[in-house]
Amino acid sequence: MSIDQISLKLHKKLKGKLETRSKIKISNKKILSAVYTPGVAAVSKAIAVDSKLAKLYTIKGNTIAVISDGSAVLGLGNIGPLAALPVMEGKAALFKEFANLDAFPICLETQDTEEIIKTVKNISPVFGGINLEDISAPRCFEIEKRLMAELDIPVMHDDQRGTATVVLAALINSLKIKKLKFNQARIVVNGAGAAGTAVAKAIYAYGGTQIIVCDSHGVIHSERTDLTPEKKMMADWLKPEIKNINTLEDALVGADIFVGVSKANLLTPIMIKSMAKQPIIFALANPTPEIMPEIALKAGAFIVATGRSDFPNQINNVLAFPGIFRGALDNHVTMITDAMLVKAAQNLAACVKNPTTKKILPDPFDKKIVRAVAKAIKKINTL
Amino acid sequence: MSIDQISLKLHKKLKGKLETRSKIKISNKKILSAVYTPGVAAVSKAIAVDSKLAKLYTIKGNTIAVISDGSAVLGLGNIGPLAALPVMEGKAALFKEFANLDAFPICLETQDTEEIIKTVKNISPVFGGINLEDISAPRCFEIEKRLMAELDIPVMHDDQRGTATVVLAALINSLKIKKLKFNQARIVVNGAGAAGTAVAKAIYAYGGTQIIVCDSHGVIHSERTDLTPEKKMMADWLKPEIKNINTLEDALVGADIFVGVSKANLLTPIMIKSMAKQPIIFALANPTPEIMPEIALKAGAFIVATGRSDFPNQINNVLAFPGIFRGALDNHVTMITDAMLVKAAQNLAACVKNPTTKKILPDPFDKKIVRAVAKAIKKINTL
Repeated sequence: MSIDQISLKLHKKLKGKLETRSKIKISNKKILSAVYTPGVAAVSKAIAVDSKLAKLYTIKGNTIAVISDGSAVLGLGNIGPLAALPVMEGKAALFKEFANLDAFPICLETQDTEEIIKTVKNISPVFGGINLEDISAPRCFEIEKRLMAELDIPVMHDDQRGTATVVLAALINSLKIKKLKFNQARIVVNGAGAAGTAVAKAIYAYGGTQIIVCDSHGVIHSERTDLTPEKKMMADWLKPEIKNINTLEDALVGADIFVGVSKANLLTPIMIKSMAKQPIIFALANPTPEIMPEIALKAGAFIVATGRSDFPNQINNVLAFPGIFRGALDNHVTMITDAMLVKAAQNLAACVKNPTTKKILPDPFDKKIVRAVAKAIKKINTL
Repeated sequence: MSIDQISLKLHKKLKGKLETRSKIKISNKKILSAVYTPGVAAVSKAIAVDSKLAKLYTIKGNTIAVISDGSAVLGLGNIGPLAALPVMEGKAALFKEFANLDAFPICLETQDTEEIIKTVKNISPVFGGINLEDISAPRCFEIEKRLMAELDIPVMHDDQRGTATVVLAALINSLKIKKLKFNQARIVVNGAGAAGTAVAKAIYAYGGTQIIVCDSHGVIHSERTDLTPEKKMMADWLKPEIKNINTLEDALVGADIFVGVSKANLLTPIMIKSMAKQPIIFALANPTPEIMPEIALKAGAFIVATGRSDFPNQINNVLAFPGIFRGALDNHVTMITDAMLVKAAQNLAACVKNPTTKKILPDPFDKKIVRAVAKAIKKINTL
């Protein structure tokens, strides 16, 4: 059976992957009276007096909402909330498996930015953190930014900053193997949606100086008149030396690194051959990468990573998001900053003792990852 | 230790009563690929083509939202969403324990009617049913009515129609013991909030004709100028013969039944003595009833029921809501009608083979209750 058939069969059998259950078996009237009325009234009264107790006495202390509007689900596009649900359920299950966090999927009937923000705020009391998922650009930027500012619990759009954390970790180890410094590397990011924008920002935050970002219309630079506000902002801080560099093909000439978060089969062997010697290729389009690993390697690539589990070097968000939220909740972080995520990427990279071209990232089932990532998510005392 | 102390200690230890977890252990890459990417994409694609598959492949088929705005929590009043959370968690746990339904608490940051309706609609895709809880009157009427009309999944405000179902079942057995017919009984309902209004309606739907409802200002009748729209509607169909009957005291003279969903210690022995011989007293105010059972019995009451587990005849919503939603989901009911709930009350009453004055309702842990209630919640073929 193909993985598709296995997955369909499993979902049919399970009728939903996630279950909610009581931590204590409600087997008699005494327990019923403590879990529910009349005993529970004492707990409600205590929280009414001191709202901070909610984190200690209720699920708020350990529960994450996985929220999507179904507008950019995997590589499937705008398939809506019901079709997004199996993905969000799966993500909720991973939170439990990898970080012992309880998580619940919320798929929204609306794709209106203001209504999403309002709805998430309205349901936020139950949750200790908000993981936004598969919301299309450019709405995802405004939604994440506003919710981060307006809620007192940590908020992260995983497709942006979770992805960027794992990509940065993979780049740290790749450049370590290649013995190249970030500020010496010429890096081309292809794709300027949620992931591409966040990846470019993370590379910049880590010290990358020669970054070129392309969208489907070519290189992003400040002279272009068709840019969204987010891309316009990026054009300002990217400041690429863009004499006659307008297309992806132009941008790749002499580049050390290609990070694709774009479309299947977009990168050709000829383009790889135009890059610097032994380039690093992250072809992260899902499920079909920008170039297949064997073709990229044949064309001269030194390290190849994809989003897929059936090739070496899988860039998998599960390496980051469980630890990020575990750390945020354990360390009482109400705002997950980019600086914390850069540190998380460093810690994640360090989980691989001796990185090689075939192993730039740890195995997701490596138990030490969550702790390594989590300890980066804390407020830094600046005094 | 008091029940309050036991409950506080339990909540402190559990740090939240509810957990979410994967039904399948995600122990290796193969399972990870089936539960999440890339395999899950096949499930999303299938649902995108046929949205009905969501009920088969996701948690939608078995998951209930327990939604409150924290405005009327137990007898504690408007204590807000965080303080309401332990109650909603408890309720979610009961759904699993008693009906094997997965349930998740949603406590809302808003108490605005339109915003509540919008928010619930926005998060509805994940759920198979909506249990509204502890929302104050009169907003609860509009919210339940609108959501019932505007959503394609079953919606019930438990404080209204769940309570009414259990009270009606208790009345059916009480009148059976007393050998009195519904249309011959003079019934006084004291309290015209969520529960009182629904109880009066249920008695009326079951054939009660002599019903008087009182609120804190006295008997509800159409000449009063201070009525909310809901109470005004009730005054129309109640049509009590209200010559000089204005106060609760007046209303009780000669009455067979008192159903209190009002305030502690409001009913006196003198008032009970003014009622018909051997009256039925349901003193359901929580945690302190309208009159304590021993006092009511001493004053001549024949049957006494309360909301408490430490006296005989507990009117407990857990007797109804698990079966109601179990039936709605199993029988593909998208609208839980009052007629279905009358039938559910009959089935619930029939769970007690030989009702006595000390046992008018079954024990909540009686396993046959859920099935008995559930089988009432189905569309009746009217052809």
